Amino acid sequence: MTLFSRTLRCQAAFRRFPVELSSPGAPGTFNNIRKLSQTFSRTSCRAPVEAVAVRGKMNNNNYPLDYSRGGIKEFNQRFLDSAARGDLAEISGLLGAVDINVKSERGWTALMFAARNGQTHVISILIERGCDVNCLNASGQTALEIARFWNHSEAASVLSQHKQGVEFDQIHNYFSLNPLYRASEMRKDTAGLQAAKNNMSTKFVLFSDQKPFLLRSEEPSRKYKFAVFNINQLGTELLERGTVIFLGLETWDPDSNAWFAVDIKEELSDIGPKFFPEGKYATPFPVTMQMEPTQAGIFAEAHSVLCWLDKYKFCSTCGSATKIAEGGYKRVCQNWECSSNKGVQNTCYPRVDPSLIMLVVSPDKKDCLLGRQKRFPPKMYSCLAGFMEPGECLEDTCRREVEEESGIKVGRVDYHSSQPWPFPAVLMLGCIAYARTSALKCSKPYPQVDTSELEEARWFSRAEVAQMLAGQHPHGLYVPPGEAIAHQLIKSWVASSFSNL
Amino acid sequence: MTLFSRTLRCQAAFRRFPVELSSPGAPGTFNNIRKLSQTFSRTSCRAPVEAVAVRGKMNNNNYPLDYSRGGIKEFNQRFLDSAARGDLAEISGLLGAVDINVKSERGWTALMFAARNGQTHVISILIERGCDVNCLNASGQTALEIARFWNHSEAASVLSQHKQGVEFDQIHNYFSLNPLYRASEMRKDTAGLQAAKNNMSTKFVLFSDQKPFLLRSEEPSRKYKFAVFNINQLGTELLERGTVIFLGLETWDPDSNAWFAVDIKEELSDIGPKFFPEGKYATPFPVTMQMEPTQAGIFAEAHSVLCWLDKYKFCSTCGSATKIAEGGYKRVCQNWECSSNKGVQNTCYPRVDPSLIMLVVSPDKKDCLLGRQKRFPPKMYSCLAGFMEPGECLEDTCRREVEEESGIKVGRVDYHSSQPWPFPAVLMLGCIAYARTSALKCSKPYPQVDTSELEEARWFSRAEVAQMLAGQHPHGLYVPPGEAIAHQLIKSWVASSFSNL
Repeated sequence: MTLFSRTLRCQAAFRRFPVELSSPGAPGTFNNIRKLSQTFSRTSCRAPVEAVAVRGKMNNNNYPLDYSRGGIKEFNQRFLDSAARGDLAEISGLLGAVDINVKSERGWTALMFAARNGQTHVISILIERGCDVNCLNASGQTALEIARFWNHSEAASVLSQHKQGVEFDQIHNYFSLNPLYRASEMRKDTAGLQAAKNNMSTKFVLFSDQKPFLLRSEEPSRKYKFAVFNINQLGTELLERGTVIFLGLETWDPDSNAWFAVDIKEELSDIGPKFFPEGKYATPFPVTMQMEPTQAGIFAEAHSVLCWLDKYKFCSTCGSATKIAEGGYKRVCQNWECSSNKGVQNTCYPRVDPSLIMLVVSPDKKDCLLGRQKRFPPKMYSCLAGFMEPGECLEDTCRREVEEESGIKVGRVDYHSSQPWPFPAVLMLGCIAYARTSALKCSKPYPQVDTSELEEARWFSRAEVAQMLAGQHPHGLYVPPGEAIAHQLIKSWVASSFSNL
Repeated sequence: MTLFSRTLRCQAAFRRFPVELSSPGAPGTFNNIRKLSQTFSRTSCRAPVEAVAVRGKMNNNNYPLDYSRGGIKEFNQRFLDSAARGDLAEISGLLGAVDINVKSERGWTALMFAARNGQTHVISILIERGCDVNCLNASGQTALEIARFWNHSEAASVLSQHKQGVEFDQIHNYFSLNPLYRASEMRKDTAGLQAAKNNMSTKFVLFSDQKPFLLRSEEPSRKYKFAVFNINQLGTELLERGTVIFLGLETWDPDSNAWFAVDIKEELSDIGPKFFPEGKYATPFPVTMQMEPTQAGIFAEAHSVLCWLDKYKFCSTCGSATKIAEGGYKRVCQNWECSSNKGVQNTCYPRVDPSLIMLVVSPDKKDCLLGRQKRFPPKMYSCLAGFMEPGECLEDTCRREVEEESGIKVGRVDYHSSQPWPFPAVLMLGCIAYARTSALKCSKPYPQVDTSELEEARWFSRAEVAQMLAGQHPHGLYVPPGEAIAHQLIKSWVASSFSNL
């Protein structure tokens, strides 16, 4: 079976960033990021978990063809093919002969094939002739989602005008767009994983001491992306000497391409430039803030697990050595008497650290609270944040952290969105918090409020924050760029305020 | 300073459970819990983080008096006192002479003192005379919240009819009502913590091998609660031999009572029955599902941290021994060269495991998906659930887990509420998930869907689920009791459906 393996992109939904970061390896600076505070548009683009699978033949134009094993009549197949190719004449000719909503084996309609390739005119004709815009394929995707994912904005525009059902419209923060299917059930299939590693179609991304080996995209975006290797390039010996984790499959189909991440020591790291001379091992932050979004999602998964494997080599319960299992998603204590080997213990599994980040709104709803930590670059303000503790619910962490850091008392807390923040494995839980008091800690008589985390916190008006979002504040104050959930929280509040005027 | 130390209760908001569990120590069974599926009403009761502090004298009636250090005129003080006592005659007499909204040093108005003691007639008079119902005290509480917290339902009813501002109305799931202020800044104050441990006013709760030492409340609730000890009872030697953690303070006032939890080995455990012959060391689950709600919150914090201290004695990074620091909230590797001692590493801090739990709604919104695991008692169904993995956002975990367990593809995911689940330190993140497909895995051609966790999953109609919630299903099917977030998710969906009719 020949498969498409192309880097999955979701660029339609994101604006380009005008300034390049300093080269990987240079100390990360926020000053460059400052210029990157373009708005990161809210996207309805749900990255399909399937790349388009091709069975059988592939034509010269690289169009997706689905010659299934029997059952599809020739007219139907020609209909689907002509939609993919944009052959208006053939489409029109066949329309009377076929069911306009006929589906391929994978549940793809002509509309979806047209959407896949941005065949806007075909889409218009099909819609005009009454096709079902809301069909779902076997992966649960609509034609609109397919068009958006493959960056066909005109096609998406036509489709969105005609969608009838309530399409789910969910925020996808940066780092959370992972196109891979994690296939967790495969992790225990040691033989299957070994076979996958030896398969020429399998993709490997490379790390050295948890630094990703990256290339840059072509102009004009110049985004970072993984260099992708195969087993012939890396060799089995390198895999044995490194740490290898199974990231998942390209689609829900168990025969689809597998992806692995390999983390090697520095002394072996020249394998990267050997095959990709232009590539570099990047200091993860802030370079990975500038990746193609679906690549960022792959980085988030790989980096978090590799860091955990690196920092958690020993059994917390008894101090013995551990061995990696389940494709990198488990560490097993080698002391068989240890209680970590009885039942299901979290000591064996990767750690995720939930942290709140909140945009605190003043009692009169006109201002929001932003602060800065000592380590921030000058003039950058962000939302307050803090790690959750055992025994807390999300809202109580929010209230506790805001009070500790600013003295402000919060009432209602509304969850907004979440973001994996792979430094190393934080789960950011973003909320809008409604303050009930407005006196900041400096003016409070209680000395117990912690002052060590925040250097400063103050109220900002909506107008001022809008300027900061746009990078147009008269004194140069700004907020983190759109890849940061803080930016999204702030933007969401400013936008909602304006919509109420 | 004399302080009130009374067990903080929030019983007004919860219905009583009709059936007692088997005694602590007996194997936990769900059959008893089955009978406990009374609805766990959504409460607007925000447990104030302050118990009422009393400075100076305390009168014989145990009313909160706030004789501050100067500044309160005698008439004002009499006014506040008479509100607390319910002295209608004196209140009426003073009303012309004082500012009706005069505040004590802690920001308490007469209305609040009346609310504290359920003085409904005083409340009515004050409201009638135009007092400000929405004042906040220094802890950010309104009179209505105070009345609710102290279980004065009639007073609360009067107040709620007159509230004008938007009071935040947030779900509080069981285990999340913790009345203590964690005072995390005190954790590094080793001398202060030591002094607190030696203070006779300090409260200790006792565990043995992480089993809490509990008593039962008086009739009719017969809920479990902690036996509370002081330093004279336990003795400094026991504290040194056990594991001691600082849970927090009773109020934001740094001079308020401190609470600690002590975990001792079995050989020392007869200290408990020595002072409380009727007490028992309880198997945490399911006994702690039957605690007074604010006690459950204290249990959640204490048990999670004590379990972490017990299971994470060794440094994950290098295998060396660790020592407990920061009041039990940190473990420090004793190998000073270890990288865990450089920067801020999560290996040193208590672990919280985020897990999704979701009520999946069918595409036509008429049914919901419930499942059962092999370990459930017969006839009990619950929401699907699964742990988050590194690199995921909350919604993607939901989608992945639902697909893995049932084959159903989910679109939109809406966060509902969260719950600390202290077995040992799970953070349940509850969501409503909107399915886009309805074919369950048995009928799907893909063999890769994991079958090992769920024994069964199927769609239930709204009517059927309503019966299960009420314990009235004709075949005896039921859902977890109100203390479980699953129950709250299900109830929320059923209620919202009906409100749309």
